[in-house]
Amino acid sequence: MSIEYTAIKLVKRPVLNITPDLFEVVKMTTSEIDDGQILIKQTHMSLDPAMKGWMTPDRESYIPPVELGDVMRSGGVGEVVESKNERFPVGSRVAGLMGWTEYVVSDGTGMNQLPPEVPSEAVLCVLATPGLTAYIGLINIGKAKAGETILISGAAGSVGSMVGQIAKAEGLTVIGTAGTDEKCRWLTEELGFDAAINYKSETLADELKVAAPKGLDLYFENTGGAVQNHVFDLMNAHGRIMVCGMIADYNAEIPAAGPNWIPIIKKRLMIQGFTIPDHYDKAPEVMQAMGKYLMEGKIKYRAHVLEGLESAIDGINLLFDGGNTGKLMVKL
Amino acid sequence: MSIEYTAIKLVKRPVLNITPDLFEVVKMTTSEIDDGQILIKQTHMSLDPAMKGWMTPDRESYIPPVELGDVMRSGGVGEVVESKNERFPVGSRVAGLMGWTEYVVSDGTGMNQLPPEVPSEAVLCVLATPGLTAYIGLINIGKAKAGETILISGAAGSVGSMVGQIAKAEGLTVIGTAGTDEKCRWLTEELGFDAAINYKSETLADELKVAAPKGLDLYFENTGGAVQNHVFDLMNAHGRIMVCGMIADYNAEIPAAGPNWIPIIKKRLMIQGFTIPDHYDKAPEVMQAMGKYLMEGKIKYRAHVLEGLESAIDGINLLFDGGNTGKLMVKL
Repeated sequence: MSIEYTAIKLVKRPVLNITPDLFEVVKMTTSEIDDGQILIKQTHMSLDPAMKGWMTPDRESYIPPVELGDVMRSGGVGEVVESKNERFPVGSRVAGLMGWTEYVVSDGTGMNQLPPEVPSEAVLCVLATPGLTAYIGLINIGKAKAGETILISGAAGSVGSMVGQIAKAEGLTVIGTAGTDEKCRWLTEELGFDAAINYKSETLADELKVAAPKGLDLYFENTGGAVQNHVFDLMNAHGRIMVCGMIADYNAEIPAAGPNWIPIIKKRLMIQGFTIPDHYDKAPEVMQAMGKYLMEGKIKYRAHVLEGLESAIDGINLLFDGGNTGKLMVKL
Repeated sequence: MSIEYTAIKLVKRPVLNITPDLFEVVKMTTSEIDDGQILIKQTHMSLDPAMKGWMTPDRESYIPPVELGDVMRSGGVGEVVESKNERFPVGSRVAGLMGWTEYVVSDGTGMNQLPPEVPSEAVLCVLATPGLTAYIGLINIGKAKAGETILISGAAGSVGSMVGQIAKAEGLTVIGTAGTDEKCRWLTEELGFDAAINYKSETLADELKVAAPKGLDLYFENTGGAVQNHVFDLMNAHGRIMVCGMIADYNAEIPAAGPNWIPIIKKRLMIQGFTIPDHYDKAPEVMQAMGKYLMEGKIKYRAHVLEGLESAIDGINLLFDGGNTGKLMVKL
């Protein structure tokens, strides 16, 4: 059976912004699969800030860049439509790296079987990268404890919203920052954050102080920018800072300076950067923990769903201008 | 027996620099000691960068400031000249917090007995705060391993020179920065550093790259300033940065900005600030380890000795203008 489908290749490197001319939309045709292989029809494709890094060669990066001429890299959820691999029978649902494509052939490496009762949007919002990132950062690296106070920047984002909800479930006081008042209301009214602050406020420093009368024990950094400038002032002794994202600076020609390091000594702070490929081995246990939160109703999520593969080309920029209102994904 | 002696009190807070008007030289007289007490005649008094912080009230600091009107705080070595405490017979040598004074009465709390074979200068240079700071930072926090490469700023300083020599003894490649060519020669020719670079060099970035062809696994931060600006570029993945001192900024009205945090994520760096009062419980084991290095001839030290108590008033500024050529102390 030969199926014609659409895929999107990366053909140019971004200079500063992600522009449509970086991509080429191509028509492809599936060929016969080999023994051990499966043909996956992707149904939901994840769009993530890290993709900007994947488009750019950088010897310092944690993962090799996408080669020019290759299909753009991404995670997704799909259905097995042909199988010569008994681990993945036809009809099973899988999650893993699939790329910007309607169909993909895989030997099953890195593909995870999904339970039928979890909606595909929940997989990308909770069980996949956002949940894994949030859990590893908060629990494994931050060693968050009940009674502590955490500040989360980019709190309405796909990772931030998971961090805050796990932290609430674990008994912390949770403060988030976001870029619109609507997002802030969502954090407090829907997700149960103790406080949410619009980082564009001119009184940001004061509002942070009011929200954290006992200071901060933890800071989960997703954005850089305005919030970071105030964090060292608010941290308590022996505070932990988990550095997960710097989206405010990814598109900057000259990234903004960071804060002076004197408070790192005075307060004996620990700052730890992390990326998820280092922690893929913990995915099964984290998925189990996140699945439990989900089933107990402790985790809500909001998907921002674009329609059709080609919507990714412009849509990915929603992540960098703050226009997305939930975990960004494309429904195919 | 009543002895007249000199002490120096802190009577004003520093605004920016440490100036003579902050201090008052007073004549005092010893009184009868109580049961359990000892009278110590201080022979060697330590001058350390942290003293600037002790002069300034700061709710964020790790130790309360010296009260105005109190004798200035400092560590030192002395001899017990009167004793009503059987743990410390007359004639024994002790180290501990003594203050800017020729004589001090103590109940023995925080005082450590010293073996007779270790010279007083070696106590302040190796066994006391510098050795403890270096060992805790390098071994306990940095988890330094043989074969790794470390960069040390302020490497000719009291702490930096200990860090480098312990690192050499543990099998690391050791690079130091210092502020004069003479100090750099001392690091390579006397202390066995693999490379030493004058941080005032206009080609600092290039010289660091040449000295660390395999990149840096560890950075021991004593200074802030020029060296810090290049460190994120040189760090390897999973590098560790121990933040011990920021002497370049302690006298700055507006402390310099730090580097942007994007490399913290990309390289998954760990940055940990620390101060020694958190680690006093480890002093006995560290003193033992440092004493062993010293006896094996693996640790050399250089004391910069001022003469007479009052020399501390101007002399402390040698620490902030880089004029000291070894661990700064006052011989009484």
